[in-house]
Amino acid sequence: MDPAFNFCSACGAQVKLTIPPGDSLLRHVCDACQTIHYSNPKLVVGALPVWGDQVLLCRRAIEPRHGKWTLPAGFMENGESVAAAAIRETAEEACARIALGEMSTMISLPHISQVHVIYLAELLDLDFAAGEETLDLRLFSEAEIPWDEIAFRTIHLTLKHFFEDRRRGQFQFRTLELKPHA
Amino acid sequence: MDPAFNFCSACGAQVKLTIPPGDSLLRHVCDACQTIHYSNPKLVVGALPVWGDQVLLCRRAIEPRHGKWTLPAGFMENGESVAAAAIRETAEEACARIALGEMSTMISLPHISQVHVIYLAELLDLDFAAGEETLDLRLFSEAEIPWDEIAFRTIHLTLKHFFEDRRRGQFQFRTLELKPHA
Repeated sequence: MDPAFNFCSACGAQVKLTIPPGDSLLRHVCDACQTIHYSNPKLVVGALPVWGDQVLLCRRAIEPRHGKWTLPAGFMENGESVAAAAIRETAEEACARIALGEMSTMISLPHISQVHVIYLAELLDLDFAAGEETLDLRLFSEAEIPWDEIAFRTIHLTLKHFFEDRRRGQFQFRTLELKPHA
Repeated sequence: MDPAFNFCSACGAQVKLTIPPGDSLLRHVCDACQTIHYSNPKLVVGALPVWGDQVLLCRRAIEPRHGKWTLPAGFMENGESVAAAAIRETAEEACARIALGEMSTMISLPHISQVHVIYLAELLDLDFAAGEETLDLRLFSEAEIPWDEIAFRTIHLTLKHFFEDRRRGQFQFRTLELKPHA
């Protein structure tokens, strides 16, 4: 969740919510210094690290979904590429080294203004370990995946597609959109 | 360019630039209300509208690159999907209706903290017209493309790949990274 937007971050005056001239959407606008403050969707980027017929999942040590299993992923930072973000998140959450492959999924979540991007990746060695945001981590074969304990729908979908594609012997990049839970 | 960040947008107090506990990067932090203000890369999303052997380009009526040619594209908005952003930008800048195809390119620009995503698209009719941010627009065959007058390197690359792929008879999604101009 973005913090409340009441004051201009440039000059400190109170902002108002208004549609600027030539625009069609409400923005936080500062009458004192004329700054228009835009807010845009965030990229969450991660990897699906593969070792033989197994994939590496992490059990979350943080909210949301504390205790649930996920792929290493997190908010992309300024100054990095999408690929660099996937490698960094895997290093931070799983202390793991990967070689990135193709992009696997790009899933829009308009109700929370996020876009989740997951790369296929090859795990380079077995010296992984739980990072600060991870309770536990391990390799899972398809039959072992705790499907009812996966933290996020985007990760669930990405894993499902990965195993389907592997059975078919052909990987496919997918762009999808998820609506809010009914 | 993001505006200066001097004051907390939640409570109006002055912020300081510091690395929060458990983090590794400098953030704007408010000591008064404890809000940590994150800044993340922005998605710029657009389309490559195709009509027969021609593509639709728009001449920019705004800075940067006023007067140069580009594909319809712009900042993705909160509350929309990546696909919806491509369709909306094409409607706004070219007053054109498209059917989206596959994603063509996803290009990271870490030096400006942007990610540019362009979809292949089929132009549905010829009732296009210049939107508010467009001086002029027209269909170009490959031989007619004004290569030296293309506004952005990401658009130049996307067009090059499109025509290469069309000659090969096979379209391919590409993820790339561009460094700053030397």
